[in-house]
Amino acid sequence: MFAKEEYCTRREKLRELLGDGLILFLGNEESGINFEHNTYPYRQDSSFIYFFGLQVPGLHAVIDLDEGKEVIFGNNLSIDDIVFTGPIESLEEQAHKVGVASVNPIDSLDAYIGEAISKGRKIHYLPPYRPEHILKLSQLLNLSAKEVSKKVSTDLIKAVVKLRSIKSNAEILEIEKAVNTTVEMQYKAMEIAEAGMTEADLFGAVQNIAMANGNNTSFPSIVTINGQILHNHYRGNLLKEGDMVLCDCGAENFSGYAGDLTRTFPVNKTFSVKQKEIYDIVYSSYKTAVGMLKPKQLFRDVHLAACKEIVLGLIDLGLMKGDADKAVEAGAHTLFFQCGLGHMMGLDVHDMENLGEQYVGYTDDLHQSKEFGFKSLRMGRALEEGMVLTVEPGIYFIPELIELRKSENKYFEFVNYDKLEEYKSFGGIRVEDDFLITENGSRLLGAKLPTTSMEIEDFRISKTRL
Amino acid sequence: MFAKEEYCTRREKLRELLGDGLILFLGNEESGINFEHNTYPYRQDSSFIYFFGLQVPGLHAVIDLDEGKEVIFGNNLSIDDIVFTGPIESLEEQAHKVGVASVNPIDSLDAYIGEAISKGRKIHYLPPYRPEHILKLSQLLNLSAKEVSKKVSTDLIKAVVKLRSIKSNAEILEIEKAVNTTVEMQYKAMEIAEAGMTEADLFGAVQNIAMANGNNTSFPSIVTINGQILHNHYRGNLLKEGDMVLCDCGAENFSGYAGDLTRTFPVNKTFSVKQKEIYDIVYSSYKTAVGMLKPKQLFRDVHLAACKEIVLGLIDLGLMKGDADKAVEAGAHTLFFQCGLGHMMGLDVHDMENLGEQYVGYTDDLHQSKEFGFKSLRMGRALEEGMVLTVEPGIYFIPELIELRKSENKYFEFVNYDKLEEYKSFGGIRVEDDFLITENGSRLLGAKLPTTSMEIEDFRISKTRL
Repeated sequence: MFAKEEYCTRREKLRELLGDGLILFLGNEESGINFEHNTYPYRQDSSFIYFFGLQVPGLHAVIDLDEGKEVIFGNNLSIDDIVFTGPIESLEEQAHKVGVASVNPIDSLDAYIGEAISKGRKIHYLPPYRPEHILKLSQLLNLSAKEVSKKVSTDLIKAVVKLRSIKSNAEILEIEKAVNTTVEMQYKAMEIAEAGMTEADLFGAVQNIAMANGNNTSFPSIVTINGQILHNHYRGNLLKEGDMVLCDCGAENFSGYAGDLTRTFPVNKTFSVKQKEIYDIVYSSYKTAVGMLKPKQLFRDVHLAACKEIVLGLIDLGLMKGDADKAVEAGAHTLFFQCGLGHMMGLDVHDMENLGEQYVGYTDDLHQSKEFGFKSLRMGRALEEGMVLTVEPGIYFIPELIELRKSENKYFEFVNYDKLEEYKSFGGIRVEDDFLITENGSRLLGAKLPTTSMEIEDFRISKTRL
Repeated sequence: MFAKEEYCTRREKLRELLGDGLILFLGNEESGINFEHNTYPYRQDSSFIYFFGLQVPGLHAVIDLDEGKEVIFGNNLSIDDIVFTGPIESLEEQAHKVGVASVNPIDSLDAYIGEAISKGRKIHYLPPYRPEHILKLSQLLNLSAKEVSKKVSTDLIKAVVKLRSIKSNAEILEIEKAVNTTVEMQYKAMEIAEAGMTEADLFGAVQNIAMANGNNTSFPSIVTINGQILHNHYRGNLLKEGDMVLCDCGAENFSGYAGDLTRTFPVNKTFSVKQKEIYDIVYSSYKTAVGMLKPKQLFRDVHLAACKEIVLGLIDLGLMKGDADKAVEAGAHTLFFQCGLGHMMGLDVHDMENLGEQYVGYTDDLHQSKEFGFKSLRMGRALEEGMVLTVEPGIYFIPELIELRKSENKYFEFVNYDKLEEYKSFGGIRVEDDFLITENGSRLLGAKLPTTSMEIEDFRISKTRL
């Protein structure tokens, strides 16, 4: 948790951006797995953390712009709660730590909102991404589930995005801490991976470091020999000589901030020639993108430059052909690089994704594309000093996608489908780091990991850190 | 997954128990953590697993009793899904494996249910424990959220409880597998724990074994030096000489079945005299309870006998006084043993808890108590051959509870509050094993772990298994 002043400043800026009405923030509840009381690890809503800091279930909060009040709604623990979960500070003490003077019982929220509605006041709320919030809003505002989604406050979304997009120094310190824990997770994977282990063994070792150093992981770690499956959570495979391991993982601090790094490395000490060739193309795409990061740079153009670099490399290898710019324009690179180059990162690993990618990564004049490949680019707009984002190019050989595009007669002008047959069981490679946009460029967050194919091989052989 | 016949038999028995109408089973969806697409590890609903076996999100199922039809509603994967999550079998193939011939697109469920309602047919459904299901039922049945809870089918609950309470041989094999993975988790904790480690280190090592051998844990592992906090999920403490570690954990198989074991052991090689005295009382309570397990035995009476054994031990130690039977009758033991002796276990670690504890653990003639201590006894009714349940007595010194009861002038006839002062920072001890009720008694499930204080000390010293 930050100093009280950090939260007060954030709420003050929000009040200035929004003007009038009443802002309702719903905290997250516990989520039952297979029955109500067997719950997933608790995670507070990120905007609630941002403005109110408190990470316990059962809280909601109101910023009353018209009456200049801030109230946290929640209950103190009963003796039954204490028996099962131990004593914690009173809600008053907790609220005091984040600069909120007023605490009301949770039951009184209904009446509070009801009265505001009866006075015709505007109720601002963010888009609900958990069904519990749809139910709660539906009950509080007396709206159907469908209406709840429609009446979300665009003004509030835009204000929250504006504030959360630019990280304070205190936030950057927390993010860098999370990234450094993630660096340890990556080193662990590269240190211990060997033929005969299962993906699950490696997953567990990586997960442990996040658990021991912070709250949790910022997303379920991807630790797989099938890097071509972008969000692969199966982990029953044995690592074999000749395989590559793709490890995409992130730690989450107790403060809620995320890290997110990916490395792909050989189960052998060294890459095969074929693996190294593809790896070096991905790295070259990464270098190109990183070199472009600076304020005012459209991230969409960084993405396009990274795509072009991949196409140029694949042309050199004989897997693609023709004019690189035209290939990217035609979307032929999406046969190999199906997703976006990166995303903002902060209290969420895909920061503020629940507020809507169009609002977070685009502007009124720049719209998120609906095309395959481009629609997964979460960030397109101009960079600003203080933003934190990932850069994560990759090359993925997905047999089902290759077959589909071939059967659709797509990209024949740019793709050598015959040569591609040799790569159908290749897998996938991704390299991902986290960057802070600075006044004139960018800064890599966290300690540097082995990144080039040579650095990775050196580490796999010597186990000596950079 | 079991053989097709197992699922067909289960559904056939359910049809026989229910007669007419239409049974609607809602499968679980993915649950977003901090945004929709950052999801918790997926867990299918246990009754869905029991009757339909399939463990993928986005499925619902109908057993149409009047028309003698069984239909699974769901969608096949799009190319976008395949890119992100890899190829899987078609829904038709999956349904075939569990003996269901009919597969309909998920969108058609609305119309199917709508038509049944318009014909005045009864729609049976189980109590929703996830907000997504309240929303879904509300939409499908055109009911308010409150009405959804009221119109739950008691007939369906009773039929499902009747079937799931008695485990088949195939189920017992799966449960014993999960228990044996849990045995490995316990051995690991007792093997590696030492002063200077954190609870988180130990938690990670225990968690890993579940992840590497199965789907997940059956509940978030409790690995703590504060055993008196019954559901303690904080794990930042260092293990110190003189502490005890309470490790309560369970593995969950890929098939969904749970294990659940607890051991409490010293961070030193041996218990202190004080620790051993309390441990031996808990063990004696455990032995008494286990000795009573057999068909027709009321589990409530096993609980009471276990409570009495605890009181007798505490009288010997001078912490309690007076008549043991009267002390239990007055609830004085709940100052030390605040929860229930055990619960059924199967596809849920607290089996079927979502169906209502009154239906699962009690009968029309035997009601769950609302008194502190007794209300946490999840199982009271007579045991039957084929039931699987835990036995888990414990003694917990909870400073806040002791202070509260003292200030209420409670239990002065039975408790030596002065002497109790010496135990206020003692912590808590629990011993828990899993049992199958057999024709004439019970059988311990899984390999035997060190259980007596001497066995535990022997293992801590020699690291040699029993």
